[in-house]
Amino acid sequence: MLTLFHSPLLPGCRKIRLMLKEKNLPHQLKVEDFWLRRFEFFALNPAGDVPVLLTEKNQPIVSAYAIAEYLDETFPEVQFFGNSPNERAEVRRLVDWFDGKFDREVTQLVLFEKLYKRLMGYGEPSSEAIRAGKKNILYHLDYIAHLLSSRNWLAGEYLTLADISAAAPLSSLDYLGDVPWEQYPSVKEWYALIKCRPAFRELLEDRVQGFRPPDHYTDPDF
Amino acid sequence: MLTLFHSPLLPGCRKIRLMLKEKNLPHQLKVEDFWLRRFEFFALNPAGDVPVLLTEKNQPIVSAYAIAEYLDETFPEVQFFGNSPNERAEVRRLVDWFDGKFDREVTQLVLFEKLYKRLMGYGEPSSEAIRAGKKNILYHLDYIAHLLSSRNWLAGEYLTLADISAAAPLSSLDYLGDVPWEQYPSVKEWYALIKCRPAFRELLEDRVQGFRPPDHYTDPDF
Repeated sequence: MLTLFHSPLLPGCRKIRLMLKEKNLPHQLKVEDFWLRRFEFFALNPAGDVPVLLTEKNQPIVSAYAIAEYLDETFPEVQFFGNSPNERAEVRRLVDWFDGKFDREVTQLVLFEKLYKRLMGYGEPSSEAIRAGKKNILYHLDYIAHLLSSRNWLAGEYLTLADISAAAPLSSLDYLGDVPWEQYPSVKEWYALIKCRPAFRELLEDRVQGFRPPDHYTDPDF
Repeated sequence: MLTLFHSPLLPGCRKIRLMLKEKNLPHQLKVEDFWLRRFEFFALNPAGDVPVLLTEKNQPIVSAYAIAEYLDETFPEVQFFGNSPNERAEVRRLVDWFDGKFDREVTQLVLFEKLYKRLMGYGEPSSEAIRAGKKNILYHLDYIAHLLSSRNWLAGEYLTLADISAAAPLSSLDYLGDVPWEQYPSVKEWYALIKCRPAFRELLEDRVQGFRPPDHYTDPDF
């Protein structure tokens, strides 16, 4: 069976969990508090971060990028990257947008400051950083709304890793009540469709001690 | 013909230029000063950054991630990702290491502060950030030396995108004289092998106004 080392609210980990479930791949989950720098975990991943997937042959696949590509190559029955080089390029452009740009401009400033900094014992959150992240998210939600004005899903006419890469950090930020859904009805509608998928519902059951999500967090009709 | 919009010292762009040359793909280069936020360029890439590859059909392929995968899929004669899912996972793990971890811990702190900040008119470099980046690079060079202690190339027995993803930022930092080669003889030897490849030599001819590289920068026997 596959084993995923993860951290419940980290977007890169949520994304891989969603892929594993959508692909119907039996797997076990192990929470890894990577900031404790556990020796055995460093042997699997010298970079020390999550996600790490252990294959059935105990081969570690390291980083959300490598795992996502590996899963689509190795278990191609349900595809997440599109059907042609151009389609895949569009999916990967958006994956890069959310894993890179969105992560730097929003996730690191809000989720890291508010939640991981406390879990990791890195001191007080910076209210300036949080303010900047909450301002930046509006621009990203505008961009998602712009994509949805001409497409059913972010990269085109069907669900791909682009949607999952966007929904994963949004779900973590929503846990903190930091997504202004009401201002973005088309984005809310798109997210509601993802939210009611069985793969996603399970993930929304996770709780982090000391942080209680808002009431609408698990509600598909939010 | 393919067209690459790039910035001469940006590692993500150098990496794609190296791939294009190693794959013998005819292409033209266009320098894009992305911080000027040129309207026509934003139409190609709403994220506003480089590299962007225009295909022969004028389709923009956006981000180093999407371009690298696209080039290997579309022009597979010379492969950069390895021959099996496990090999590709190892290459991608290291690509992620250099594009993500190395970029955050070294490139952003040294190259951005010293060079791009001035080009972009973003004020004075932070000497604290530069000091941190120059300290961090030692740990990364240690890790490269560790890999080379059991392998000919970073991901195994032949040159892959892992080597190119490491050599690209190292070459940009070397332009600034910020790679302590003498302390890492095996890393120096590996870099010398890459440096004497025709694809790499051309790239080392680029100059950025106001910044002069050290004498050893273009010398294959440095």
